[in-house]
Amino acid sequence: MARAAAREKPPAGALQSVLERLALRFGGRFSTAAAVREQHAHTLTWIANEPADCVVFPGNAAEVAEIVQLCAEHDVPVVAFGTGTSLEGHVNAPFGGVCVSTERMVEIVSVHAEDLDAVVQPGVTRKRLNDHLRDQGLFFPIDPGADASLGGMAATRASGTNAVRYGTMRDNVLGLTAVLASGEIIRTGGRAKKSSSGYDLTRLLVGSEGTLGIITELTLRLHGTPEAIAAGICPFRSVADACAAATATIQSGIPVARIELLDALQIRACNAYSRLGLAEVPTLFLEFHGSAAGVAEQSARFGEIAADLGGGPFDWATRAEERSRLWQARHDAFWAAGAMRPGARPMSTDVCVPISRLADCVTETQADIAASGLVAPIVGHVGDGNFHCLPLIDMANPAEVAACEAFVGRLVECAIAMGGACSGEHGVGQAKMKHLEAEHGAGAMAAMRAIKRALDPQNIMNPGKIVIP
Amino acid sequence: MARAAAREKPPAGALQSVLERLALRFGGRFSTAAAVREQHAHTLTWIANEPADCVVFPGNAAEVAEIVQLCAEHDVPVVAFGTGTSLEGHVNAPFGGVCVSTERMVEIVSVHAEDLDAVVQPGVTRKRLNDHLRDQGLFFPIDPGADASLGGMAATRASGTNAVRYGTMRDNVLGLTAVLASGEIIRTGGRAKKSSSGYDLTRLLVGSEGTLGIITELTLRLHGTPEAIAAGICPFRSVADACAAATATIQSGIPVARIELLDALQIRACNAYSRLGLAEVPTLFLEFHGSAAGVAEQSARFGEIAADLGGGPFDWATRAEERSRLWQARHDAFWAAGAMRPGARPMSTDVCVPISRLADCVTETQADIAASGLVAPIVGHVGDGNFHCLPLIDMANPAEVAACEAFVGRLVECAIAMGGACSGEHGVGQAKMKHLEAEHGAGAMAAMRAIKRALDPQNIMNPGKIVIP
Repeated sequence: MARAAAREKPPAGALQSVLERLALRFGGRFSTAAAVREQHAHTLTWIANEPADCVVFPGNAAEVAEIVQLCAEHDVPVVAFGTGTSLEGHVNAPFGGVCVSTERMVEIVSVHAEDLDAVVQPGVTRKRLNDHLRDQGLFFPIDPGADASLGGMAATRASGTNAVRYGTMRDNVLGLTAVLASGEIIRTGGRAKKSSSGYDLTRLLVGSEGTLGIITELTLRLHGTPEAIAAGICPFRSVADACAAATATIQSGIPVARIELLDALQIRACNAYSRLGLAEVPTLFLEFHGSAAGVAEQSARFGEIAADLGGGPFDWATRAEERSRLWQARHDAFWAAGAMRPGARPMSTDVCVPISRLADCVTETQADIAASGLVAPIVGHVGDGNFHCLPLIDMANPAEVAACEAFVGRLVECAIAMGGACSGEHGVGQAKMKHLEAEHGAGAMAAMRAIKRALDPQNIMNPGKIVIP
Repeated sequence: MARAAAREKPPAGALQSVLERLALRFGGRFSTAAAVREQHAHTLTWIANEPADCVVFPGNAAEVAEIVQLCAEHDVPVVAFGTGTSLEGHVNAPFGGVCVSTERMVEIVSVHAEDLDAVVQPGVTRKRLNDHLRDQGLFFPIDPGADASLGGMAATRASGTNAVRYGTMRDNVLGLTAVLASGEIIRTGGRAKKSSSGYDLTRLLVGSEGTLGIITELTLRLHGTPEAIAAGICPFRSVADACAAATATIQSGIPVARIELLDALQIRACNAYSRLGLAEVPTLFLEFHGSAAGVAEQSARFGEIAADLGGGPFDWATRAEERSRLWQARHDAFWAAGAMRPGARPMSTDVCVPISRLADCVTETQADIAASGLVAPIVGHVGDGNFHCLPLIDMANPAEVAACEAFVGRLVECAIAMGGACSGEHGVGQAKMKHLEAEHGAGAMAAMRAIKRALDPQNIMNPGKIVIP
């Protein structure tokens, strides 16, 4: 992929000197093996794998600071790596340099149950945090498809199926510790629930994808496990009707915790992959959180909305096993899609539009899929106006890859034209840089570049992502 | 008040030239009258009034851009002004320059009921927006004490009594249009509910108090008017018990919409000012939003928590007039406090601590008030750990002013030591700059200064607030 560049690879001598010093300092926690380097760069889509020159495994912020300082001295790029489950080429190293894995930074530092917050190192994954919290009646709601690291989730401003009720990483990170390009360790935010004390550095770092700093600790907002949970599925005659039901649910103020669309093709994929036996029609998966009476009331109100739109019957269940089975199938949608076409890979797209335009955007997208000859199931966090198509692409077929790339471009343009965002939750990485100016305009892009230059004057922090400074 | 300065007043010639050109360009929408200039600087606390050299009343973003560009050319400061109800010296012009009033930028540009958002000019006040929305079953929840302008509320990251349920301006601004120091007009964010597309410039501008740009348009998140509202008051034996009840309510996950503490002294003030006849003991004011069954359930659960802590009886009412009367009294707390001591002024303080430390912080503060010989009622958004003391100060008595200033300093230090913020919702302005480093540390302050320099290299945007670049 052609990219303009505001930097080049570091001179071989400088790089060599950094590698030698890191090898000496980190010993067994340092590797230049090709297999290790390739595993720590992009692997999940058509974006080429661009490995760093080495991978280091620090254990704390001070060690990360040491690495960054060394890289700054020698003008060598630094790329942070969590679990490698990002989808837009965030962890590639187009200019080489040092990959900083947070694999060993996995301490759950403290849980303040009474304040509903937890302090964790960035390599802790969301599932591990939730396992840890379960006994205390608490949970962390953000759930991207993968069991991603919390540092990576903050860096990409991730969300998932619960965001409609609980917000995204933007809303659930109270504070951060981060290492800036200078090697300095800073703290942002704090444990108070509100603050109007100075620039919001926390929100600036959340979603900055390692281009402004490397997150070394997170203070996360927790939520009490709901007293009662009800889940259910509801079939519709068309995706437009299902979207309309999602829209009406949001507009009527039902505090739905999850409202997910799977189109007919995705249901077929899930039936096969997760042995569900559902009718192969557009279907909403829902979940309600609250008191026992509250979830019953919410469910009943949703059922009426669905019926008004010709949907239903709305089957709902409060049994934990049934719920888990449904949501596991939903979380496996990516893999289920992939299994539909052996030898092909699902290429996840990700746009977000104002909810009033959701039905239009999904309908236009389905028409485009049909016209393009692609096989592309759709899943969506439709309560937020956010959806993904998963074109199944034979990577050995350049025409197919090109058709898919063109389709993704049109999808993003369609979302931006409807007042939406080129990415709802996956981030920019390498793949969506070209769309930012269309979405944000030249002035906002100039401001982003100015901020990047101010905090990373040498452009060593994950260069080639988000903005070219 | 002594302040280090990274700039000085502009040379007289440059200033004169700007004043002449603005007079010519804006005619009747330009003033250098002393009374007008003084009204458009700080007036509400002991902070000295430092008027700008003129006040201009632009009508749109292009006119604001024109003014800022002119000021940039001549290195003249620009201070944005909404309704002048900020409390920390935000609208003073210590280096003179041009005050940009948003008084004429009062258009409600559009309401997208189906998307739960509205686009407004910055001079629209919160009450006018809510009057406009009422017929559509929508409301904008953020309610600082004053009927502030929405631009000013975003600039100071304001909140109020509903923040415990609906968040602050941080959470309820979807996007902005702003004029940067270069005179360039930028758009940030958008109308999609989620985005992971680039740096979060919206959150960077929210709370930046006009030091990074002047907000010329806001896209705000709206909420559906709740189907049912219940409100009530609950007396307690001590502020510690009342705080404990608030804390337990939050921890148990009751989605309370408002939970406000008024201490015994503040109740006495409200009884006199709003003719309430309440028992003069620490009291929580509460409000619940939801379905009819939902608010009844929430109220009942709160009543049990209160009883466990020796509070109560919890009297609740769903009648709109009773509710309005109670909440009007709560909103008038500042004026009620002031009326307790004729000739004195209430000096509002504002700290926020992790909720587990709330009872400690309020109790320590009451002891300090007693020891200092101050008269200082306490009101608090205790569901967020945020509270205000209102010392009633005779401004003609320098010893009293000094005692109050010293008390405020100790209160802030106490909050920071408990992991809290020096300001929960009033902002930094001139008065709290000195506390930022203790709260955020040197590294974060350096990052804030770098951002300020990057976006405002001449330091013309509201200089002398938040950071000295």
